[in-house]
Amino acid sequence: VGLSELDIISRYFNQSGLAADPLHHAAVSLGIGDDCAGLRLAAGQELMLSMDVLVEGVHFPASANPADIARRALAVNLSDLAAMGAQPLGFMLGLTLPDAQPYWLEGFSQGLKASATRYGCPLLGGNLTRGPRQIAIQVQGQVPAGMALLRSGARAGDKVFVSGSLGTAGLALQYVLGELPGVQLADQAILHQAFYDPEPRLALGIALRDIASATLDISDGLLGDAAHLARSSGVQVGIDARLLPLDPVMMVYLDAGSVRKLALTAGDDYELLFTVPVDKVHLLEQLALAQQVPLTCIGVCRAGEGVVVEHGDDPEQVGGYDHFRSR
Amino acid sequence: VGLSELDIISRYFNQSGLAADPLHHAAVSLGIGDDCAGLRLAAGQELMLSMDVLVEGVHFPASANPADIARRALAVNLSDLAAMGAQPLGFMLGLTLPDAQPYWLEGFSQGLKASATRYGCPLLGGNLTRGPRQIAIQVQGQVPAGMALLRSGARAGDKVFVSGSLGTAGLALQYVLGELPGVQLADQAILHQAFYDPEPRLALGIALRDIASATLDISDGLLGDAAHLARSSGVQVGIDARLLPLDPVMMVYLDAGSVRKLALTAGDDYELLFTVPVDKVHLLEQLALAQQVPLTCIGVCRAGEGVVVEHGDDPEQVGGYDHFRSR
Repeated sequence: VGLSELDIISRYFNQSGLAADPLHHAAVSLGIGDDCAGLRLAAGQELMLSMDVLVEGVHFPASANPADIARRALAVNLSDLAAMGAQPLGFMLGLTLPDAQPYWLEGFSQGLKASATRYGCPLLGGNLTRGPRQIAIQVQGQVPAGMALLRSGARAGDKVFVSGSLGTAGLALQYVLGELPGVQLADQAILHQAFYDPEPRLALGIALRDIASATLDISDGLLGDAAHLARSSGVQVGIDARLLPLDPVMMVYLDAGSVRKLALTAGDDYELLFTVPVDKVHLLEQLALAQQVPLTCIGVCRAGEGVVVEHGDDPEQVGGYDHFRSR
Repeated sequence: VGLSELDIISRYFNQSGLAADPLHHAAVSLGIGDDCAGLRLAAGQELMLSMDVLVEGVHFPASANPADIARRALAVNLSDLAAMGAQPLGFMLGLTLPDAQPYWLEGFSQGLKASATRYGCPLLGGNLTRGPRQIAIQVQGQVPAGMALLRSGARAGDKVFVSGSLGTAGLALQYVLGELPGVQLADQAILHQAFYDPEPRLALGIALRDIASATLDISDGLLGDAAHLARSSGVQVGIDARLLPLDPVMMVYLDAGSVRKLALTAGDDYELLFTVPVDKVHLLEQLALAQQVPLTCIGVCRAGEGVVVEHGDDPEQVGGYDHFRSR
């Protein structure tokens, strides 16, 4: 009560250690406080831009912890930079709130600060307004010109890989929404983290610049995103359902068919899906070891189009989350 | 009904002539369709970034024409680029909609296209999701490195100028909200345009790079924004209320005191407020003629702090729109 817009911006965003400081961030020429923020890229660098909006009641429950919401909001944007092989430079925040609760603002800004610091992606500026709670985040990153990992470079014969494991975030969403009763205490933490702290695979994306022929992050579900890759590259993506990397925690709560379905269609994993020419596949083993990230071959690209799932339960599987049509 | 998220993005945004095309936009290296958009700046250019969110029921009425909303949403962002002396490169759109009405989407995308084409600022990418209607726009622009118009450069003795006229958008807001009865037909169009088509002063901003010592756009109201300038520059801004440029349309509907109050506090004009060293003031006359834009001297900077309004009605005037505290 009584906090003004300027008070909020100053206390929770400008002076919270979250804001970009031109003295400490080489690319930032102008931080918060003018009509625009400013960036200066080093010669030969290309700017990468992405934006994602999180809506209360759609992407997170109204009861969610504000620090959790903040970390997730930044992570899903950073995942788009990872999918291009880009290094983060900073982000802009469009925050709409129904009221100015210090508890919420404090938690939210601390959560943002934790992720911004961890990933070297400070706040450059933005906008605070009153309305139904939504968080619009827009990230900037850089990649050497011409080195960005596109969706369009896969060729017939390339192997198809994913990082991490698949489907856990889909199960975690059920848990977060209160639709998965009886979760054991130890698993609650795993599922909470799977939903609110997806790991943006930034280091992996950078390492894949010289290895992958096509890359994207799994935000629409494996089948939906594999279809994007197939269409952009002009290939058919064949996926062997038996090879899908699954987190053991899923087996405790779901039967095998439901687990595979989540792994194929759940939209919140934010792992990288990428293709690698056969003569570079040997580079991945060392990369997986060096970065301590599982990299699993789940299929192969062929001449043709679309996505074919082999050894799956249901040949009619179609994938992806659609905000405007029910599955 | 039945339109999928991908259908909507494809029909109304990718293929509507709105989307950036690397073949036609020199700075765009990667348009819509991958995890990120890409920009490559020419050597010696600095990137300028700004973001504004418009919320239904706060920034526009639910009944507003979608093309009007779109033009206004882009214009208020472009105004921030104008205030830095930057040239637009492109924008990202975070669109949240309660439903997928073809009428609304068609109008909205056509309105966006009109402004994007007019100002050379194509759509680079973004995000479509379901939820309470909000429009988050984030613009990119460029300015030669070190030439951006900051808020902090005003010095004692500099003259204070505004472009266009002040307060009309504040009156227009009352009209748009249905709170100003009895508006004559000819004036309805003027007020409609004042609210939905604020003119981003892009050409003026670029011309002011070599002339102005400090610049911002009037989005919080003249007094509020003059206070920002005073604080950033470490000067006192003296405003002579008799010099405020007022649109004659206001006199028809309001008494003189109300007109001056709107001119001092209304937050929607998006004119430029700028300061000019005395030895450069003579350059403004030719600029005003060349660009056909009124430039009015409304005061002077002095040693001191804050904003002082002379010859006004109310020495207690405080300015600016605050989303979290009533005026």
